[in-house]
Amino acid sequence: MSEVHAARRSRLRARRAPAGAEAALVSRSANVRYLAGPAPAGAVLLVGHSGADVLFAHWNPAGDPAGPRPAGDDGLRSVALGTDADPAVTAAAQAARDGAAALSVEEHHLTVARHRAVAAAVPDLVLNDLDRAVERQRLVKDEDEIAALRSAAEITDRALGELLESILVGRTERHLALELERRLVDHGADGPAFPTSVATGSHSGLAGHRPTDRRVEEGDFLTVCLGARFRGYRCQIGRTFVIGTSPADWQIELYEVVFAAQRAAREALAPGAEYRSVDRAARDVLDAAGHGKSLGPVTGHGVGLEIGEDPQLAPTAMGRLGPCVPVTVEPGVHLPGRGGVRIDDTLVVRSPADGGPELLTITTKELLAL
Amino acid sequence: MSEVHAARRSRLRARRAPAGAEAALVSRSANVRYLAGPAPAGAVLLVGHSGADVLFAHWNPAGDPAGPRPAGDDGLRSVALGTDADPAVTAAAQAARDGAAALSVEEHHLTVARHRAVAAAVPDLVLNDLDRAVERQRLVKDEDEIAALRSAAEITDRALGELLESILVGRTERHLALELERRLVDHGADGPAFPTSVATGSHSGLAGHRPTDRRVEEGDFLTVCLGARFRGYRCQIGRTFVIGTSPADWQIELYEVVFAAQRAAREALAPGAEYRSVDRAARDVLDAAGHGKSLGPVTGHGVGLEIGEDPQLAPTAMGRLGPCVPVTVEPGVHLPGRGGVRIDDTLVVRSPADGGPELLTITTKELLAL
Repeated sequence: MSEVHAARRSRLRARRAPAGAEAALVSRSANVRYLAGPAPAGAVLLVGHSGADVLFAHWNPAGDPAGPRPAGDDGLRSVALGTDADPAVTAAAQAARDGAAALSVEEHHLTVARHRAVAAAVPDLVLNDLDRAVERQRLVKDEDEIAALRSAAEITDRALGELLESILVGRTERHLALELERRLVDHGADGPAFPTSVATGSHSGLAGHRPTDRRVEEGDFLTVCLGARFRGYRCQIGRTFVIGTSPADWQIELYEVVFAAQRAAREALAPGAEYRSVDRAARDVLDAAGHGKSLGPVTGHGVGLEIGEDPQLAPTAMGRLGPCVPVTVEPGVHLPGRGGVRIDDTLVVRSPADGGPELLTITTKELLAL
Repeated sequence: MSEVHAARRSRLRARRAPAGAEAALVSRSANVRYLAGPAPAGAVLLVGHSGADVLFAHWNPAGDPAGPRPAGDDGLRSVALGTDADPAVTAAAQAARDGAAALSVEEHHLTVARHRAVAAAVPDLVLNDLDRAVERQRLVKDEDEIAALRSAAEITDRALGELLESILVGRTERHLALELERRLVDHGADGPAFPTSVATGSHSGLAGHRPTDRRVEEGDFLTVCLGARFRGYRCQIGRTFVIGTSPADWQIELYEVVFAAQRAAREALAPGAEYRSVDRAARDVLDAAGHGKSLGPVTGHGVGLEIGEDPQLAPTAMGRLGPCVPVTVEPGVHLPGRGGVRIDDTLVVRSPADGGPELLTITTKELLAL
């Protein structure tokens, strides 16, 4: 893996090269992981202008297995800091010693107080904004990253599949969520990609619903939304089921509308498609059915080392999809007091020549009566 | 509860009053919760100079039960924002409209990019630093807060007690951690206060060890560290057990030393005691036994709405304990390749007249052989 990270750092350096002898100070944790691999919390990466990259961190004193090390083949050196040292300040001082004329920092991540401490430590360095360069680089995934997402999705499908074979009536949202998270770990996840949501009855269809002590009852809609984190990569699946043998007419109708909206957005995924046109595809179906207003502001988003990455699939989002961009497609409708439906998938954008969008979360989207 | 929050905001206002018509923009989530009660993620609180306080947030469109509302008896109004609006920018604009001359912001929390957006939105307002005023106010807890911590500790003791009654040999750290977290929730916790740590064999005694697939074996030290979150308040307990009927001599000796160090620090807790003298009390015992070097940089810390609050009990920490300050006391020693011992308690500082330090986590600290 270390060659992968070195290549990513080279690409970042190449992008910043026109700025001259400019080093980059990367502090946002997912960005550090992307460029340097797993690192302790709070680690900061200095991407030097000349190729000498250094990771600064507080390692566990008792000997983290991935502890500090001299520079390897990949040109990355690690330095362990004392408790009181801010890795960002130490990294900036290193950039000055290495002869950088300017230092780009992540102004969307560093606080005002830390930025001031960095500036005070290196008065001769010009501080610029890295301007989300690493986030932009993370948007399109390489095949290693997509493989990790695929494994995360497999684990997630398996955990969900097992739950569907168990008795659900009478159990609380909270317990079902805990059981799903346990099964994710059982099947090899590092942990859940985000807090598992289980919503039954009048809660069903709510985005990001936090599980309560409400019990699953006969006749309920049951919405679950979960995902595994595997080698740092996070996927998402959402499904809605009906409890009992015979769904009510309103349930069948609502399910069909949300399913049609979700399918329309999935089918709109293609290299070159505008973010907002994918959103529009789902929104048009729900608008036509009179449910446009209960749709949230976003119908999907990128996934990767974080669960809510760029791009956003939303009415005002600017930009176009590229190949190898993984996104969720997750429209939902909630009818206050009654419940609702959400259907979420994680897919990778692929060209029609490559078979079109690659569906990672393959659990059936038929309306199952459990 | 709303009177409690209103009184807290009045105290903050009173502290800032010498600064004139200065409003405060509180963005750090635990600080917002402390001053306004539970609020959606990302909510920002404007504490007006004249007593008109407003909470700005993105509420769940499907009708969060604690959704936006007009000002109640407590003088707090809530405003729901559109997706694209930054609550900090909207709050600053409100302060300007309310006639504030200056606005204090949390420079240790706002990023450089957000601070710039706030400044651009209110060019006529002087922006100052709130300088951790809310964190300082949160240091000493009121009896409501201590009652929440007490409940959190009761839940934690119960979850741990149940685990001790089960068979441990052969189970993995990861599974034991998940089971403890499930039991916390079973007994009424909102969730774990921090990621549960279970460390067995050569991992035992490591601070913040992340559970692995290592299984508990006969003869192991087993260290668990967990805590419940209850009404937002977080406590911490850590215990080390020995697996099997007969601990080895080195295990008994190491346990006794860490226990003595932990007791010394607990006994040093009193109103007026220096933070560093509490740390010193534990460190001296371990130094004398030749284990001083394997002690981490901190032997305890405040707890409350966050798990690692002020004060820090560390060699260079400046300040003195006051009554009603809850802290952890958590020395640990890890011997590489062999394992080690941690013993963590949560206590509330009380004067000798009030019976001395109040121990919240009451699970026995005898060396149990399980």
